[in-house]
Amino acid sequence: MPDVTPMVDFWFEFASTYSYPAAMRIAPLARAAGVTVRFRPFLLGPIFKAQGWDTSPFNLYPAKGRYMWRDLTRICAALDLPVRRPEPFPQMSLAAARLALVGLDEGWGEDFCRAVYRAEFGEGRRIDDAAVLAGLLAGFGVDAIAAQERAQSAAIKSRLRAECAEAQRLGLFGAPTFVTADGELFWGNDRLEAALAWAKEPQVVGAA
Amino acid sequence: MPDVTPMVDFWFEFASTYSYPAAMRIAPLARAAGVTVRFRPFLLGPIFKAQGWDTSPFNLYPAKGRYMWRDLTRICAALDLPVRRPEPFPQMSLAAARLALVGLDEGWGEDFCRAVYRAEFGEGRRIDDAAVLAGLLAGFGVDAIAAQERAQSAAIKSRLRAECAEAQRLGLFGAPTFVTADGELFWGNDRLEAALAWAKEPQVVGAA
Repeated sequence: MPDVTPMVDFWFEFASTYSYPAAMRIAPLARAAGVTVRFRPFLLGPIFKAQGWDTSPFNLYPAKGRYMWRDLTRICAALDLPVRRPEPFPQMSLAAARLALVGLDEGWGEDFCRAVYRAEFGEGRRIDDAAVLAGLLAGFGVDAIAAQERAQSAAIKSRLRAECAEAQRLGLFGAPTFVTADGELFWGNDRLEAALAWAKEPQVVGAA
Repeated sequence: MPDVTPMVDFWFEFASTYSYPAAMRIAPLARAAGVTVRFRPFLLGPIFKAQGWDTSPFNLYPAKGRYMWRDLTRICAALDLPVRRPEPFPQMSLAAARLALVGLDEGWGEDFCRAVYRAEFGEGRRIDDAAVLAGLLAGFGVDAIAAQERAQSAAIKSRLRAECAEAQRLGLFGAPTFVTADGELFWGNDRLEAALAWAKEPQVVGAA
Protein backbone atom coordinates (compact mmCIF):
# COMPACT_ATOMS: atom_id res chain seq x y z
CA MET A 1 0.00 0.00 0.00
CA PRO A 2 1.39 3.43 -0.89
CA ASP A 3 2.03 5.70 2.05
CA VAL A 4 0.14 8.67 0.57
CA THR A 5 -3.50 9.65 0.48
CA PRO A 6 -5.08 8.26 -2.69
CA MET A 7 -6.05 11.00 -5.12
CA VAL A 8 -8.31 11.51 -8.11
CA ASP A 9 -8.34 14.42 -10.52
CA PHE A 10 -11.91 15.30 -11.47
CA TRP A 11 -11.78 16.82 -14.96
CA PHE A 12 -15.05 18.48 -15.92
CA GLU A 13 -16.50 20.93 -18.42
CA PHE A 14 -19.30 23.24 -17.33
CA ALA A 15 -21.16 22.63 -20.59
CA SER A 16 -21.13 18.85 -20.02
CA THR A 17 -24.41 17.38 -18.85
CA TYR A 18 -23.05 14.23 -17.21
CA SER A 19 -20.55 16.37 -15.28
CA TYR A 20 -23.56 17.72 -13.36
CA PRO A 21 -24.42 14.54 -11.40
CA ALA A 22 -20.69 13.78 -11.09
CA ALA A 23 -20.00 17.18 -9.51
CA MET A 24 -22.86 16.65 -7.09
CA ARG A 25 -21.79 13.14 -6.13
CA ILE A 26 -18.02 13.27 -5.96
CA ALA A 27 -17.27 15.03 -2.66
CA PRO A 28 -19.25 12.78 -0.30
CA LEU A 29 -18.28 9.59 -2.17
CA ALA A 30 -14.59 10.51 -2.14
CA ARG A 31 -14.74 11.43 1.55
CA ALA A 32 -16.32 8.09 2.39
CA ALA A 33 -13.64 6.31 0.33
CA GLY A 34 -10.77 8.30 1.87
CA VAL A 35 -9.76 9.69 -1.52
CA THR A 36 -8.66 13.30 -2.10
CA VAL A 37 -10.24 14.98 -5.14
CA ARG A 38 -8.86 17.85 -7.19
CA PHE A 39 -11.47 19.77 -9.21
CA ARG A 40 -10.00 20.52 -12.65
CA PRO A 41 -12.28 22.52 -14.95
CA PHE A 42 -11.33 22.46 -18.62
CA LEU A 43 -12.87 23.19 -22.01
CA LEU A 44 -13.93 20.44 -24.39
CA GLY A 45 -14.43 22.83 -27.30
CA PRO A 46 -10.83 22.67 -28.57
CA ILE A 47 -10.78 18.87 -28.25
CA PHE A 48 -14.08 18.52 -30.11
CA LYS A 49 -12.89 20.96 -32.79
CA ALA A 50 -9.73 18.92 -33.30
CA GLN A 51 -11.91 15.95 -34.22
CA GLY A 52 -14.10 17.99 -36.54
CA TRP A 53 -17.05 18.76 -34.26
CA ASP A 54 -18.32 22.31 -33.98
CA THR A 55 -20.92 21.60 -31.29
CA SER A 56 -21.82 18.93 -28.75
CA PRO A 57 -22.02 15.36 -30.11
CA PHE A 58 -25.48 15.33 -28.52
CA ASN A 59 -26.51 17.96 -31.05
CA LEU A 60 -24.64 16.37 -33.95
CA TYR A 61 -26.27 12.98 -33.35
CA PRO A 62 -29.95 13.59 -32.50
CA ALA A 63 -30.77 10.00 -31.41
CA LYS A 64 -27.84 10.10 -29.01
CA GLY A 65 -28.93 13.53 -27.80
CA ARG A 66 -32.50 12.43 -27.13
CA TYR A 67 -31.20 9.44 -25.22
CA MET A 68 -28.76 11.53 -23.19
CA TRP A 69 -31.44 13.93 -21.91
CA ARG A 70 -33.65 11.02 -20.92
CA ASP A 71 -30.77 9.14 -19.30
CA LEU A 72 -29.65 12.27 -17.43
CA THR A 73 -33.20 12.81 -16.19
CA ARG A 74 -33.38 9.23 -14.88
CA ILE A 75 -29.98 9.49 -13.19
CA CYS A 76 -30.80 12.83 -11.60
CA ALA A 77 -34.23 11.64 -10.47
CA ALA A 78 -32.53 8.86 -8.50
CA LEU A 79 -30.27 11.51 -6.90
CA ASP A 80 -33.17 13.87 -6.27
CA LEU A 81 -31.61 16.48 -8.56
CA PRO A 82 -33.80 18.58 -10.86
CA VAL A 83 -33.08 18.65 -14.61
CA ARG A 84 -33.92 21.49 -16.93
CA ARG A 85 -32.30 21.94 -20.32
CA PRO A 86 -30.62 25.35 -20.77
CA GLU A 87 -31.02 27.31 -24.00
CA PRO A 88 -28.85 27.32 -25.97
CA PHE A 89 -27.26 23.95 -25.41
CA PRO A 90 -24.33 23.67 -25.01
CA GLN A 91 -23.72 26.79 -22.95
CA MET A 92 -20.52 28.84 -23.38
CA SER A 93 -18.52 27.75 -20.36
CA LEU A 94 -15.40 29.91 -20.60
CA ALA A 95 -16.35 32.53 -17.98
CA ALA A 96 -17.47 29.91 -15.47
CA ALA A 97 -14.29 27.87 -15.97
CA ARG A 98 -12.04 30.89 -15.34
CA LEU A 99 -14.04 31.85 -12.26
CA ALA A 100 -13.80 28.29 -10.97
CA LEU A 101 -10.00 28.45 -11.17
CA VAL A 102 -10.08 31.65 -9.09
CA GLY A 103 -12.39 30.04 -6.57
CA LEU A 104 -10.36 26.84 -6.32
CA ASP A 105 -7.39 29.01 -5.27
CA GLU A 106 -9.50 30.89 -2.76
CA GLY A 107 -11.49 28.14 -1.10
CA TRP A 108 -14.92 28.69 -2.65
CA GLY A 109 -14.28 26.84 -5.90
CA GLU A 110 -16.07 23.57 -5.25
CA ASP A 111 -19.19 25.32 -3.93
CA PHE A 112 -19.13 27.54 -6.99
CA CYS A 113 -18.86 24.56 -9.36
CA ARG A 114 -21.86 22.87 -7.79
CA ALA A 115 -23.81 26.15 -7.88
CA VAL A 116 -23.04 26.59 -11.59
CA TYR A 117 -24.20 23.07 -12.43
CA ARG A 118 -27.37 23.45 -10.41
CA ALA A 119 -28.20 26.76 -12.10
CA GLU A 120 -27.40 25.46 -15.57
CA PHE A 121 -28.89 21.96 -15.61
CA GLY A 122 -31.17 22.08 -12.59
CA GLU A 123 -32.78 25.43 -13.37
CA GLY A 124 -31.94 25.84 -17.07
CA ARG A 125 -30.20 29.19 -16.52
CA ARG A 126 -27.50 30.71 -18.74
CA ILE A 127 -23.97 30.41 -17.36
CA ASP A 128 -22.48 32.70 -20.01
CA ASP A 129 -24.27 35.60 -18.33
CA ALA A 130 -22.03 37.57 -15.95
CA ALA A 131 -25.05 38.58 -13.88
CA VAL A 132 -26.05 34.95 -13.30
CA LEU A 133 -22.51 34.09 -12.24
CA ALA A 134 -22.36 37.16 -9.98
CA GLY A 135 -25.59 36.07 -8.33
CA LEU A 136 -24.13 32.64 -7.60
CA LEU A 137 -20.98 34.18 -6.13
CA ALA A 138 -22.96 36.55 -3.93
CA GLY A 139 -24.89 33.54 -2.66
CA PHE A 140 -21.89 32.38 -0.71
CA GLY A 141 -20.49 35.77 0.23
CA VAL A 142 -17.89 36.26 -2.49
CA ASP A 143 -17.28 39.77 -3.87
CA ALA A 144 -18.46 39.05 -7.41
CA ILE A 145 -16.92 42.10 -9.08
CA ALA A 146 -13.48 41.42 -7.63
CA ALA A 147 -13.67 37.71 -8.45
CA GLN A 148 -14.77 38.37 -12.03
CA GLU A 149 -11.89 40.81 -12.40
CA ARG A 150 -9.39 38.21 -11.21
CA ALA A 151 -10.97 35.70 -13.59
CA GLN A 152 -10.00 38.02 -16.46
CA SER A 153 -6.33 38.24 -15.39
CA ALA A 154 -3.60 37.02 -17.71
CA ALA A 155 -2.53 34.50 -15.06
CA ILE A 156 -5.94 32.81 -14.92
CA LYS A 157 -6.38 32.88 -18.69
CA SER A 158 -3.06 31.19 -19.16
CA ARG A 159 -3.77 28.69 -16.37
CA LEU A 160 -6.95 27.58 -18.09
CA ARG A 161 -5.14 27.25 -21.42
CA ALA A 162 -2.50 25.11 -19.69
CA GLU A 163 -5.19 22.93 -18.13
CA CYS A 164 -6.80 22.39 -21.54
CA ALA A 165 -3.44 21.42 -22.99
CA GLU A 166 -2.88 19.00 -20.11
CA ALA A 167 -6.33 17.47 -20.66
CA GLN A 168 -5.46 16.88 -24.29
CA ARG A 169 -2.06 15.44 -23.36
CA LEU A 170 -3.74 13.01 -20.96
CA GLY A 171 -5.96 11.77 -23.80
CA LEU A 172 -9.22 13.21 -22.49
CA PHE A 173 -12.00 13.21 -25.08
CA GLY A 174 -15.07 13.82 -22.94
CA ALA A 175 -16.27 14.89 -19.53
CA PRO A 176 -16.38 14.10 -16.75
CA THR A 177 -13.13 12.15 -16.69
CA PHE A 178 -11.48 10.92 -13.52
CA VAL A 179 -7.72 10.40 -13.57
CA THR A 180 -5.87 8.57 -10.82
CA ALA A 181 -2.32 9.30 -9.65
CA ASP A 182 -1.01 6.39 -11.75
CA GLY A 183 -2.59 7.87 -14.89
CA GLU A 184 -5.62 5.61 -15.23
CA LEU A 185 -8.55 7.26 -17.04
CA PHE A 186 -12.19 6.74 -16.15
CA TRP A 187 -14.68 8.48 -18.43
CA GLY A 188 -18.22 9.28 -17.41
CA ASN A 189 -20.27 9.87 -14.29
CA ASP A 190 -20.94 6.14 -14.19
CA ARG A 191 -17.22 5.42 -13.73
CA LEU A 192 -16.82 7.56 -10.58
CA GLU A 193 -17.02 4.63 -8.19
CA ALA A 194 -14.52 2.61 -10.24
CA ALA A 195 -12.09 5.53 -10.27
CA LEU A 196 -12.27 5.93 -6.49
CA ALA A 197 -11.72 2.19 -6.02
CA TRP A 198 -8.74 2.25 -8.38
CA ALA A 199 -7.24 5.28 -6.61
CA LYS A 200 -7.30 3.31 -3.36
CA GLU A 201 -6.05 0.10 -4.87
CA PRO A 202 -4.68 0.15 -8.42
CA GLN A 203 -5.23 -3.09 -10.31
CA VAL A 204 -2.88 -4.89 -12.63
CA VAL A 205 -4.77 -5.77 -15.79
CA GLY A 206 -3.29 -6.93 -19.09
CA ALA A 207 -2.73 -4.43 -21.86
CA ALA A 208 -5.37 -4.73 -24.55
CA MET B 1 -47.74 -4.36 -10.55
CA PRO B 2 -48.30 -5.73 -14.05
CA ASP B 3 -49.41 -9.34 -14.16
CA VAL B 4 -46.77 -10.41 -16.71
CA THR B 5 -43.14 -11.42 -16.45
CA PRO B 6 -40.97 -8.33 -16.83
CA MET B 7 -39.01 -8.37 -20.07
CA VAL B 8 -35.95 -6.74 -21.59
CA ASP B 9 -34.86 -6.80 -25.21
CA PHE B 10 -31.09 -7.12 -25.44
CA TRP B 11 -30.04 -5.45 -28.69
CA PHE B 12 -26.45 -6.22 -29.60
CA GLU B 13 -24.05 -6.11 -32.53
CA PHE B 14 -21.38 -8.78 -32.84
CA ALA B 15 -18.77 -6.18 -33.80
CA SER B 16 -19.47 -4.19 -30.63
CA THR B 17 -16.88 -4.54 -27.89
CA TYR B 18 -19.04 -3.59 -24.92
CA SER B 19 -21.67 -6.08 -26.10
CA TYR B 20 -19.16 -8.79 -25.13
CA PRO B 21 -19.31 -8.34 -21.32
CA ALA B 22 -23.04 -7.59 -21.60
CA ALA B 23 -23.69 -10.88 -23.43
CA MET B 24 -21.71 -12.74 -20.78
CA ARG B 25 -23.48 -11.07 -17.86
CA ILE B 26 -27.09 -10.77 -18.92
CA ALA B 27 -28.49 -14.30 -18.51
CA PRO B 28 -27.55 -14.90 -14.83
CA LEU B 29 -28.38 -11.32 -13.83
CA ALA B 30 -31.78 -11.44 -15.53
CA ARG B 31 -32.55 -14.82 -14.01
CA ALA B 32 -31.70 -13.51 -10.53
CA ALA B 33 -33.92 -10.48 -11.15
CA GLY B 34 -36.80 -12.53 -12.54
CA VAL B 35 -36.65 -10.74 -15.90
CA THR B 36 -37.07 -12.49 -19.27
CA VAL B 37 -34.50 -11.49 -21.89
CA ARG B 38 -34.85 -11.59 -25.67
CA PHE B 39 -31.56 -11.64 -27.58
CA ARG B 40 -31.89 -9.35 -30.60
CA PRO B 41 -28.82 -9.19 -32.84
CA PHE B 42 -28.70 -6.26 -35.24
CA LEU B 43 -26.20 -4.36 -37.39
CA LEU B 44 -24.90 -0.95 -36.43
CA GLY B 45 -23.28 -0.36 -39.81
CA PRO B 46 -26.38 1.16 -41.48
CA ILE B 47 -27.02 3.38 -38.43
CA PHE B 48 -23.41 4.57 -38.34
CA LYS B 49 -23.48 5.19 -42.12
CA ALA B 50 -26.61 7.29 -41.75
CA GLN B 51 -24.67 9.63 -39.45
CA GLY B 52 -21.68 9.76 -41.76
CA TRP B 53 -19.40 7.15 -40.18
CA ASP B 54 -17.79 4.49 -42.34
CA THR B 55 -16.17 2.58 -39.47
CA SER B 56 -16.36 2.27 -35.69
CA PRO B 57 -16.27 5.56 -33.76
CA PHE B 58 -13.43 3.93 -31.81
CA ASN B 59 -11.39 4.01 -35.01
CA LEU B 60 -12.58 7.47 -36.06
CA TYR B 61 -11.63 8.99 -32.69
CA PRO B 62 -8.29 7.47 -31.62
CA ALA B 63 -8.28 8.84 -28.03
CA LYS B 64 -11.72 7.35 -27.51
CA GLY B 65 -10.57 4.09 -29.07
CA ARG B 66 -7.51 3.80 -26.83
CA TYR B 67 -9.67 4.48 -23.82
CA MET B 68 -12.30 1.92 -24.86
CA TRP B 69 -9.79 -0.94 -25.16
CA ARG B 70 -8.34 -0.11 -21.76
CA ASP B 71 -11.79 0.26 -20.18
CA LEU B 72 -12.96 -3.01 -21.74
CA THR B 73 -9.86 -4.76 -20.42
CA ARG B 74 -10.52 -3.48 -16.88
CA ILE B 75 -14.19 -4.47 -17.03
CA CYS B 76 -13.42 -7.93 -18.37
CA ALA B 77 -10.62 -8.48 -15.84
CA ALA B 78 -13.15 -7.94 -13.06
CA LEU B 79 -15.40 -10.54 -14.72
CA ASP B 80 -12.50 -12.93 -15.32
CA LEU B 81 -13.00 -12.66 -19.10
CA PRO B 82 -10.00 -12.57 -21.44
CA VAL B 83 -9.63 -9.68 -23.92
CA ARG B 84 -7.80 -9.87 -27.21
CA ARG B 85 -8.34 -7.39 -30.02
CA PRO B 86 -9.36 -9.02 -33.32
CA GLU B 87 -7.84 -7.92 -36.59
CA PRO B 88 -9.34 -6.17 -38.36
CA PHE B 89 -11.47 -4.20 -35.96
CA PRO B 90 -14.37 -3.93 -36.32
CA GLN B 91 -15.14 -7.41 -37.63
CA MET B 92 -17.78 -7.98 -40.30
CA SER B 93 -20.68 -9.31 -38.26
CA LEU B 94 -23.29 -10.10 -40.91
CA ALA B 95 -22.77 -13.88 -41.06
CA ALA B 96 -22.75 -14.24 -37.27
CA ALA B 97 -25.91 -12.13 -36.92
CA ARG B 98 -27.81 -14.26 -39.46
CA LEU B 99 -26.65 -17.47 -37.80
CA ALA B 100 -27.70 -16.12 -34.41
CA LEU B 101 -31.24 -15.58 -35.72
CA VAL B 102 -31.33 -19.21 -36.87
CA GLY B 103 -30.03 -20.37 -33.51
CA LEU B 104 -32.46 -18.26 -31.52
CA ASP B 105 -35.29 -20.04 -33.37
CA GLU B 106 -33.72 -23.43 -32.71
CA GLY B 107 -32.67 -23.16 -29.08
CA TRP B 108 -28.91 -22.81 -29.46
CA GLY B 109 -28.86 -19.08 -30.17
CA GLU B 110 -27.77 -17.70 -26.82
CA ASP B 111 -24.93 -20.21 -26.47
CA PHE B 112 -23.85 -19.33 -29.99
CA CYS B 113 -23.84 -15.60 -29.23
CA ARG B 114 -21.65 -16.09 -26.18
CA ALA B 115 -19.32 -18.37 -28.16
CA VAL B 116 -18.97 -15.77 -30.93
CA TYR B 117 -18.11 -13.02 -28.44
CA ARG B 118 -15.59 -15.21 -26.62
CA ALA B 119 -13.90 -16.17 -29.90
CA GLU B 120 -13.87 -12.61 -31.21
CA PHE B 121 -12.90 -10.51 -28.19
CA GLY B 122 -11.56 -13.17 -25.82
CA GLU B 123 -9.36 -14.93 -28.38
CA GLY B 124 -9.06 -12.32 -31.11
CA ARG B 125 -10.46 -14.65 -33.80
CA ARG B 126 -12.20 -13.61 -37.01
CA ILE B 127 -15.97 -13.98 -36.97
CA ASP B 128 -16.36 -13.27 -40.68
CA ASP B 129 -14.73 -16.64 -41.37
CA ALA B 130 -17.26 -19.40 -42.07
CA ALA B 131 -14.81 -22.02 -40.76
CA VAL B 132 -14.52 -20.25 -37.41
CA LEU B 133 -18.30 -20.02 -37.10
CA ALA B 134 -18.65 -23.69 -38.13
CA GLY B 135 -16.19 -24.65 -35.40
CA LEU B 136 -18.24 -22.81 -32.80
CA LEU B 137 -21.45 -24.51 -33.98
CA ALA B 138 -19.84 -27.95 -33.91
CA GLY B 139 -18.77 -27.20 -30.33
CA PHE B 140 -22.35 -27.55 -29.16
CA GLY B 141 -23.47 -30.24 -31.53
CA VAL B 142 -25.12 -28.17 -34.25
CA ASP B 143 -24.84 -29.30 -37.89
CA ALA B 144 -22.83 -26.34 -39.13
CA ILE B 145 -23.43 -26.82 -42.85
CA ALA B 146 -27.19 -27.03 -42.43
CA ALA B 147 -27.27 -24.06 -40.06
CA GLN B 148 -25.16 -21.92 -42.38
CA GLU B 149 -27.45 -22.83 -45.25
CA ARG B 150 -30.51 -21.74 -43.27
CA ALA B 151 -28.68 -18.52 -42.35
CA GLN B 152 -28.51 -17.73 -46.07
CA SER B 153 -32.25 -18.18 -46.61
CA ALA B 154 -34.37 -15.32 -47.85
CA ALA B 155 -36.45 -15.56 -44.68
CA ILE B 156 -33.48 -15.02 -42.37
CA LYS B 157 -32.01 -12.27 -44.53
CA SER B 158 -35.26 -10.40 -44.46
CA ARG B 159 -35.71 -11.00 -40.71
CA LEU B 160 -32.34 -9.40 -40.02
CA ARG B 161 -33.20 -6.44 -42.25
CA ALA B 162 -36.45 -6.01 -40.34
CA GLU B 163 -34.61 -6.15 -37.02
CA CYS B 164 -32.21 -3.44 -38.18
CA ALA B 165 -35.14 -1.27 -39.26
CA GLU B 166 -36.79 -1.83 -35.88
CA ALA B 167 -33.56 -0.86 -34.08
CA GLN B 168 -33.46 2.37 -36.06
CA ARG B 169 -37.15 3.02 -35.37
CA LEU B 170 -36.53 2.57 -31.63
CA GLY B 171 -33.79 5.21 -31.77
CA LEU B 172 -30.86 2.89 -31.16
CA PHE B 173 -27.49 4.49 -31.92
CA GLY B 174 -25.08 2.06 -30.25
CA ALA B 175 -24.77 -1.36 -28.69
CA PRO B 176 -25.53 -2.96 -26.41
CA THR B 177 -28.90 -1.33 -25.82
CA PHE B 178 -31.51 -2.71 -23.47
CA VAL B 179 -35.14 -1.84 -24.16
CA THR B 180 -37.90 -2.50 -21.66
CA ALA B 181 -41.51 -3.39 -22.51
CA ASP B 182 -42.56 0.24 -21.91
CA GLY B 183 -39.99 1.45 -24.46
CA GLU B 184 -37.31 2.78 -22.12
CA LEU B 185 -33.79 2.68 -23.62
CA PHE B 186 -30.64 1.88 -21.68
CA TRP B 187 -27.43 2.15 -23.66
CA GLY B 188 -24.24 0.39 -22.66
CA ASN B 189 -23.08 -2.60 -20.69
CA ASP B 190 -22.96 -0.37 -17.61
CA ARG B 191 -26.72 0.23 -17.82
CA LEU B 192 -27.70 -3.46 -17.69
CA GLU B 193 -28.56 -3.42 -14.01
CA ALA B 194 -30.61 -0.23 -14.40
CA ALA B 195 -32.54 -1.77 -17.30
CA LEU B 196 -33.38 -4.91 -15.30
CA ALA B 197 -34.51 -2.78 -12.36
CA TRP B 198 -36.68 -0.66 -14.65
CA ALA B 199 -38.21 -3.75 -16.29
CA LYS B 200 -39.31 -4.94 -12.86
CA GLU B 201 -40.50 -1.57 -11.68
CA PRO B 202 -40.82 1.26 -14.22
CA GLN B 203 -40.19 4.70 -12.73
CA VAL B 204 -42.02 7.91 -13.41
CA VAL B 205 -39.46 10.62 -14.10
CA GLY B 206 -40.11 14.05 -15.59
CA ALA B 207 -39.53 14.64 -19.27
CA ALA B 208 -36.27 16.49 -19.92
